[in-house]
Amino acid sequence: MSTRSLDNLIARLNRLPGVGVKTAQRLAFHVLSMPAEEVEGLSSALLEAKSRIHYCPVCGNYTEEELCEICSDNRRDRSLICVVRDARDVSHLERMREYRGCYHVLGGTLSPMDGVGPDDIRIAELVSRVKEGQVKEVILATNPDVEGEATASYIAGKLKELGVKATRIAYGIPIGGNLEYVDEMTLFKAMENRREV
Amino acid sequence: MSTRSLDNLIARLNRLPGVGVKTAQRLAFHVLSMPAEEVEGLSSALLEAKSRIHYCPVCGNYTEEELCEICSDNRRDRSLICVVRDARDVSHLERMREYRGCYHVLGGTLSPMDGVGPDDIRIAELVSRVKEGQVKEVILATNPDVEGEATASYIAGKLKELGVKATRIAYGIPIGGNLEYVDEMTLFKAMENRREV
Repeated sequence: MSTRSLDNLIARLNRLPGVGVKTAQRLAFHVLSMPAEEVEGLSSALLEAKSRIHYCPVCGNYTEEELCEICSDNRRDRSLICVVRDARDVSHLERMREYRGCYHVLGGTLSPMDGVGPDDIRIAELVSRVKEGQVKEVILATNPDVEGEATASYIAGKLKELGVKATRIAYGIPIGGNLEYVDEMTLFKAMENRREV
Repeated sequence: MSTRSLDNLIARLNRLPGVGVKTAQRLAFHVLSMPAEEVEGLSSALLEAKSRIHYCPVCGNYTEEELCEICSDNRRDRSLICVVRDARDVSHLERMREYRGCYHVLGGTLSPMDGVGPDDIRIAELVSRVKEGQVKEVILATNPDVEGEATASYIAGKLKELGVKATRIAYGIPIGGNLEYVDEMTLFKAMENRREV
């Protein structure tokens, strides 16, 4: 083949999530048409992100520094911890620009079917943080699916033993949504958790 | 920011065609979770494809060698040239595994609105190839849009002057398509070009 390096690039792009063969081809041909500096920039951005980014030893969020941006920020409320599945969720929640507490990234959710037990995710680390005594409330913000619920209940049980308040993010209809497209379970939860206005 | 290299990766991925901010984030987070060798592989695949791939001096197709795979293949029929807009079209047409002639990549289509005239695309190169005397037929396979049609007619005119047969790929309903979703112009062309069975 006279285009081995192009085929290799297509194959590697095709391994990325959500990138099918057609998209990989389109991206690869685009790369060939990009200025060389742009390609070099993208190539080294990949290496740099991979080599520099690591997990914050306190909360498990992504960081380039010793501690992550949130754990090293003294204005953040250390008595409040929001528990999430992975580091991506931290950036999703930070987009609110409202939450002033800290986070704890579990690095997964309990899933007996996949062999993921309490020792496989960062629950012990959360318990030690809580045991330090500063934490007043832990918000359980795992996903509202089977594994997320199971993980939230398991952690809630552990926190009860430690005498710390555990809360779960609210279920209800999404803002800007249409009742027609909201599933029955969500509607039921939205009705159940109705508030006086 | 404690995630500057991650933000840089997201920004660079976001510049790729069809990659919005959300997709760029998803890809970047995936890169962080990939084994280091995989990231290094992707990073160097980008550099290698960009540095090794160039245009075939005969037909304008992509190649790593002096001539492209098709131009250096003696079993290909050199009396037949298929004219396409860009090198991607060559790989699309090659997927048929039926065409045994050669190609000529224009590197664009005539578009007076965008300031692309006959001297900006590889028409002169096509004319020289035809003038060498071996070519019997030129198939015009530019896209069936305004620019593609204009380019095909322009080249057909040039070929007529040289006394070489010029053909245009057929218009009609796509195989596996549904008449309901075929536009009127295509239906008209399909009726007009009907064949006795």
